[in-house]
Amino acid sequence: MIARSLFAFLLLAFTASVASAAAPTRVEQWSIFELNLNGPTTGNPFIDVELTAQFSQGATHITATGFYDGAGHYRVRFMPEKPGEWTFITHSNRPALDGQTGSFVATPPTARNHGPVRVAHTYHFAYADSLPYRPVGTTAYAWTHQGDALEEQTLRTLAASAFNKIRLCVFPKNYDWNKHEPVFYPFAGTPPTKWDFTKFNPAFFRHLEQRIAQLRDLGIEADIILFHPYDKGRWGFDRMGAANDDRYLRYVVARLAAYRNVWWSLANEYDFMKEKTEADWDRFGRIVQQSDPYAHLRSIHNGTLIYNHTQSWVTHASIQNGGAVEEPGRAQLYRDVYRKPIVYDEVKYEGDLPRRWGNLSAEDMVFRCWNGLIAGTYVGHGETYLHPADDILWWAKGGVLRGQSPARLAFLSQVLEAAPTAGIDPIDKWQDPRFGGQPGDYYLLYFGKEQPSSWRFELPKNKLADGLVFQIEILDTWAMTVTPVPGTFITKKKDDYLFEDAAGKSVALPAKPYVALRIRRSP
Amino acid sequence: MIARSLFAFLLLAFTASVASAAAPTRVEQWSIFELNLNGPTTGNPFIDVELTAQFSQGATHITATGFYDGAGHYRVRFMPEKPGEWTFITHSNRPALDGQTGSFVATPPTARNHGPVRVAHTYHFAYADSLPYRPVGTTAYAWTHQGDALEEQTLRTLAASAFNKIRLCVFPKNYDWNKHEPVFYPFAGTPPTKWDFTKFNPAFFRHLEQRIAQLRDLGIEADIILFHPYDKGRWGFDRMGAANDDRYLRYVVARLAAYRNVWWSLANEYDFMKEKTEADWDRFGRIVQQSDPYAHLRSIHNGTLIYNHTQSWVTHASIQNGGAVEEPGRAQLYRDVYRKPIVYDEVKYEGDLPRRWGNLSAEDMVFRCWNGLIAGTYVGHGETYLHPADDILWWAKGGVLRGQSPARLAFLSQVLEAAPTAGIDPIDKWQDPRFGGQPGDYYLLYFGKEQPSSWRFELPKNKLADGLVFQIEILDTWAMTVTPVPGTFITKKKDDYLFEDAAGKSVALPAKPYVALRIRRSP
Repeated sequence: MIARSLFAFLLLAFTASVASAAAPTRVEQWSIFELNLNGPTTGNPFIDVELTAQFSQGATHITATGFYDGAGHYRVRFMPEKPGEWTFITHSNRPALDGQTGSFVATPPTARNHGPVRVAHTYHFAYADSLPYRPVGTTAYAWTHQGDALEEQTLRTLAASAFNKIRLCVFPKNYDWNKHEPVFYPFAGTPPTKWDFTKFNPAFFRHLEQRIAQLRDLGIEADIILFHPYDKGRWGFDRMGAANDDRYLRYVVARLAAYRNVWWSLANEYDFMKEKTEADWDRFGRIVQQSDPYAHLRSIHNGTLIYNHTQSWVTHASIQNGGAVEEPGRAQLYRDVYRKPIVYDEVKYEGDLPRRWGNLSAEDMVFRCWNGLIAGTYVGHGETYLHPADDILWWAKGGVLRGQSPARLAFLSQVLEAAPTAGIDPIDKWQDPRFGGQPGDYYLLYFGKEQPSSWRFELPKNKLADGLVFQIEILDTWAMTVTPVPGTFITKKKDDYLFEDAAGKSVALPAKPYVALRIRRSP
Repeated sequence: MIARSLFAFLLLAFTASVASAAAPTRVEQWSIFELNLNGPTTGNPFIDVELTAQFSQGATHITATGFYDGAGHYRVRFMPEKPGEWTFITHSNRPALDGQTGSFVATPPTARNHGPVRVAHTYHFAYADSLPYRPVGTTAYAWTHQGDALEEQTLRTLAASAFNKIRLCVFPKNYDWNKHEPVFYPFAGTPPTKWDFTKFNPAFFRHLEQRIAQLRDLGIEADIILFHPYDKGRWGFDRMGAANDDRYLRYVVARLAAYRNVWWSLANEYDFMKEKTEADWDRFGRIVQQSDPYAHLRSIHNGTLIYNHTQSWVTHASIQNGGAVEEPGRAQLYRDVYRKPIVYDEVKYEGDLPRRWGNLSAEDMVFRCWNGLIAGTYVGHGETYLHPADDILWWAKGGVLRGQSPARLAFLSQVLEAAPTAGIDPIDKWQDPRFGGQPGDYYLLYFGKEQPSSWRFELPKNKLADGLVFQIEILDTWAMTVTPVPGTFITKKKDDYLFEDAAGKSVALPAKPYVALRIRRSP
């Protein structure tokens, strides 16, 4: 009787109820369990109402923060990292949302679900199920602000590509070749600048989440850029002030962290945001780190002044550098500095812009990606072809890819996928940066723009001994061909630093640029 | 009467007295005021006796730590950083050493005394009197362990050279081409391994101090390497344990910090010292930082794993890298990472060793130094020529320089000394790393191994405008010649990124390698 009276009271007072039917009882591991609750609509629920849920399995207890989704709807999203039964209990400063309990079962992941990406082998990545993840990323900063037709075209383009990561901005973009108003705004209010930063616009975030889920279903990581300087006060999302910035971050993380394909990029070109200090960025990094129960990857992308990626909250270095991947001897240097994965997320763009950062040839774009690969780093693609008919540049809006590099990066991706689990590392970093691989087992030797007609078999000594047998393939990284070299090569010590072929054999090469050798130890 | 009795008691008990005659009343600013006291000889004065002196001038109070110098002698050294009268009072846990007071006058520095070197303009250095300091360093790790004849020869060689910094180890060295016993040992005990690490050998340190003072008088900075791995347990100075390590550091700093030409290098190839952890190195860095009242420059040199030079105690990055200075586009990358001066203290050696790190040609040694200079960094020289007659390699023992690079580095030094006060910085870092200088005023364009026969006048746009007048000299960095180019060049905007000569003029070049242009704005 008492319980029933209490329930009637709650119904009257808050029209709150547990929408139990909306809570599925079985979800895949690394997918989203979403708890939907109804609660108060009075006041400002975005800031008045606190809601968390503790999810438990045995001795594991994980607290997920809920969020207000408008119209009295409150949600708590949870990504189970272990299979089996999970129970939960909510905590809130509102009775209707407090003390709700329940359970669900996390089922084993299905084929394309490998969980979130983590750092592996210091400089590389792997999914949570330990499958190596080898980023071959691209960028379309404002693609989720273009309306359904173009956004769906972008998704079709991605589906047909080899890209497995895309960088995208939460906030709309106000920059050359993308100056229109977005479809959705992240806050309640009136464009361009009359915003109530204490009230989020749930429709904006539901739309973003839809796109993130679609990327996930394509097997593509969403590298989500939380702040950027391409606003310049037009909407003011770049200068909301510390309290609004911090609340925004916590809201985004509460909504998105349960999506397994999320990466957090604190900013694009953080140093171009003159309203914020380095201390702000550090605080943001720690807020995201502390708010995200799943420890998704975290980094921050620079303009001309690289961030201090030794900070403990940074999981990998996200670097813009227009010159570092012009040769592998440069590209590798950041590895030793940061001892973290190096992702060159901006190295200029394939395109025909009248800007020197946006008119690489396709050959140069691919060349840069190969230099990075050989150096044990990961280079992101970008495309900036002007198109008179529609003014849609992939880099800004998405749409279709017009360039010739994506096909070659699909070839690069195939090579990467077939590389050793431990990844590609420099073999002899100060002496011959053309070699990447795993010493003793696997080598990629990239000749770049050189056009040798032969290569005398010589490998750096690390982990070699006399009598090891190697097989070689010639990779034409532009023509996308793999040509086995007949016969085998047998190692013999040459001097203090090198092993050669016991019979002094060489490999005949096609005397073209962009050729690599794949040299693998015979089992 | 009471005072007199007490004095008599002290004389009897400790034979202590203030050796007031030994304390000069006038010393130059940035020179050493040394307070000499007599005190107890019982127990272990190195660890039993605490002694500091507070030096005061107006509101400035600086505490210098004293040290025991054996035979009842206690000393406190102080480097006055301001001219004028200083007073002092000692503090000690021994009455004979406590409460001693006095004063002295610091006189203005004389011509060659510019004070200690500090960081200036983020990436560069200046003496305390603001004169720019441009390191052109060399290395002779164990030169102070060779006996007077060879050590004095080393000093004569340095006096005749352009080198203004030398790296040297405190501890003796046990490595190829330097396996003999040293003249002095830093601790009391019996070689090779029976040491009392709680008792220092004052004669060892007095000898080291003599050499540091001689370097100072030659205008040469002493980059003092506090630990190194070239012991391998032979004497055990590389594995004394934390308490002994820390005490040793404090003792060295107490003795040497008042020498204005001291730099602290925590280690050579720190990562090769497997007995120590990165936490140890950080602790060492902080001990040195906290113990040194004058904040001399501090860094740490790596083997293959670069140190985290973003640590706050690190004033500049001391880097070994065998490949980074092969071109300026590589060499510059560490600048943005660390935002501190980059000193490449080991980039392989000019020599003829059967080791690939020790057989650079003189041309390559000079080439590397120029690449570093253009990149806004500083490259250290090293020499490893074998000499059958005496087995004396400069790199280890000092002696004479046999190579051809030192003369060219003297030429480089002249160019550096004539460079702008703000130093050489990359001009257009991602686009054309061949340019260093100060935009709008001063450019060095280094062609390296390229051999162009002409260069069309084109400068990156930063700080340029139409109608500026420039004069050009051709520097042959190998032949050590400076050849003015007739006439002047007048800037005119060419495109969004470059300015050209208004008349489209070019500069005729000698079509030789190792040529640079010095391009200066006419006043």
